[in-house]
Amino acid sequence: MPDFHVDPYKVEGVVDYEQFAKNSGLKLIDSELEARLRKYAGELPFLIRRRIFYAHRELDWILDQYEKGNKFYIYTGRAPSEEMHIGHLLPFVMAKWLQERFQAEVYIQIPDEEKFLAKEGYTLEGIRSVAMDNILDIIAMGFKPKLTKIFFDTDYAKTMYRQAVRVAKHITFSTVKDAFGFGNDANIGKIFYTSMQAVPAFMKSVEAGHNVPCLIPLAIDQDVHFRIARDVIGKLGHYKPAIIHTKFLPGLNGDSKMSSSIGDNAIYLTDSEEEVARKIGGALTGQQATAALQRKLGGNPDRCVVCQYYNYFFEPDDNKLKAIFDAERGGTMLAGEHKAHLAETINKYLNKHRAKRAKAAEKLDSFMLRD
Amino acid sequence: MPDFHVDPYKVEGVVDYEQFAKNSGLKLIDSELEARLRKYAGELPFLIRRRIFYAHRELDWILDQYEKGNKFYIYTGRAPSEEMHIGHLLPFVMAKWLQERFQAEVYIQIPDEEKFLAKEGYTLEGIRSVAMDNILDIIAMGFKPKLTKIFFDTDYAKTMYRQAVRVAKHITFSTVKDAFGFGNDANIGKIFYTSMQAVPAFMKSVEAGHNVPCLIPLAIDQDVHFRIARDVIGKLGHYKPAIIHTKFLPGLNGDSKMSSSIGDNAIYLTDSEEEVARKIGGALTGQQATAALQRKLGGNPDRCVVCQYYNYFFEPDDNKLKAIFDAERGGTMLAGEHKAHLAETINKYLNKHRAKRAKAAEKLDSFMLRD
Repeated sequence: MPDFHVDPYKVEGVVDYEQFAKNSGLKLIDSELEARLRKYAGELPFLIRRRIFYAHRELDWILDQYEKGNKFYIYTGRAPSEEMHIGHLLPFVMAKWLQERFQAEVYIQIPDEEKFLAKEGYTLEGIRSVAMDNILDIIAMGFKPKLTKIFFDTDYAKTMYRQAVRVAKHITFSTVKDAFGFGNDANIGKIFYTSMQAVPAFMKSVEAGHNVPCLIPLAIDQDVHFRIARDVIGKLGHYKPAIIHTKFLPGLNGDSKMSSSIGDNAIYLTDSEEEVARKIGGALTGQQATAALQRKLGGNPDRCVVCQYYNYFFEPDDNKLKAIFDAERGGTMLAGEHKAHLAETINKYLNKHRAKRAKAAEKLDSFMLRD
Repeated sequence: MPDFHVDPYKVEGVVDYEQFAKNSGLKLIDSELEARLRKYAGELPFLIRRRIFYAHRELDWILDQYEKGNKFYIYTGRAPSEEMHIGHLLPFVMAKWLQERFQAEVYIQIPDEEKFLAKEGYTLEGIRSVAMDNILDIIAMGFKPKLTKIFFDTDYAKTMYRQAVRVAKHITFSTVKDAFGFGNDANIGKIFYTSMQAVPAFMKSVEAGHNVPCLIPLAIDQDVHFRIARDVIGKLGHYKPAIIHTKFLPGLNGDSKMSSSIGDNAIYLTDSEEEVARKIGGALTGQQATAALQRKLGGNPDRCVVCQYYNYFFEPDDNKLKAIFDAERGGTMLAGEHKAHLAETINKYLNKHRAKRAKAAEKLDSFMLRD
């Protein structure tokens, strides 16, 4: 038994990503798939080169279809409950790259009922207000309005509920009980919810009146929804959606997943320069206990959150990333300097993001899909 | 333990209505309530005089509110899967009477997903087509377009799903498991459904922005949905809906409930004159085995389906009904004559109904509510 647990409602322990892929029946992204992606896209994003997006379901089939002229669309989403942290952005970074390189339409689900149903202490109204902020952050990522549709589950329920019912008919309580660890005390909205999450994976096919391939970039904790839904969607006569899986951005304390449930474990998109500097100052590194020891023995970049943030997000250049890792390993860069530089880089990114975000509100209408 | 079972998905055995009321915590309609109803309505419908609508939850509170000038609205519905039989009409007869006498708005839910989720062999498209026929039958009952709103769950899901989620959060799988007898093999749509059925019981309050009392005429098999929902609706800050309960119209074979699952057990609104004559010809009576014995010993009108159809539906005049019962009891009217007269009465009703139904299609738009 692995000593970690991953589902949409709980991530515990140190995640072994290869083990997760094996347990879940995912394939690893390999050099052959990389070569095909590069061929069609003209480049490879560092998220794939570095195997941050590391696994998939039928990405090869998506490329087969693309080769035949059968274009795919992208489905991703964000379940709102609070402001977004940088870990939430990874699927959107991938979705945006796919949109740019494959001219793919992007459907972004905002399941405003999910956290309301799954956790205590939320109101639908409160979630909606936070969600509007999240949507501005998503738009600020640079999606093209003509190729992007963002929708709230509750606003788009006339379209979605009808399809969710078709999905739900094929899923038993036993199945969600096993898949999500629900007990008999789970509420019936939470039990039903997975069928709402399934819908956008074939919604474009329903709209178009013919099958359109769908590719879902997601973090591994969401995979189980589609492990269930893929079979059902197939039974309904639609293409099963393909999936490309990202690892989690680690938390500041070194946890496998950046999470809001622990204080100072996450960098929010709204964090001030001072907050970022303070939080990064407290981040776990892979360095030795003292500067002298670090100079002598060197550190471990794989365990170093600072190095990993460069790896996942803030250093697109592989050579520069290597230099950062080497410096950590060789003991030539001490934690203080290392962290100060990262904080500066993050603040530069966030300031730029917030400038784009400030202009996102005026574009909102062109993105939103309503019934 | 009673030797009968009643829930929305199954009715078995000979229903003991007093026992059902006792087990379910319903109050019986008494002469005091009758007097209050007569006072406000100016008359009492035979469905109440004869205790066919025989039980309630908080009907007294509805009248208290009415007395204070706080008008109530009516919520009832029809889960479509096939054409309607006369047994399906009882809640609508009561709803129409309440509309006429109390100028009450009537909300009619058409949960087009319910039977699709609960049974095998249905498609949403097939159900929709049958439902359109059902709606014409309902309109033909004589509801006022300005005071009546009819809606499909799937068409009105933008309004309903948001509210259903609020309900669902307060209902656990344990609760529906016990209430509806679901096993772990129940599909998650069927599990969620009860929260959709709850919504129209407070929808008017949501629309109005303040609490509006709601009264639900229903057959007893639907009570359990609201036994669960009433508490939840109260927790959400709305008035708990009041309920008025009808007994089932018996089947032609004497079963407690007219049902489509057994051949020739139901009179459909579409049955031809010949079909009605043939079906009534085969109906169970309370008469003796031979004409001679019947003349000598007399029959039992309580066990006689023919007498009961007069009682429930086709003889509004209490004196005439008494004459029919007396003739059955006294052995002066034999089965053949008895049945021929009922068949003629039913055919007169159905022909009239179908004439009204033929004109219902043009009024359809003024009744339908969509998001």
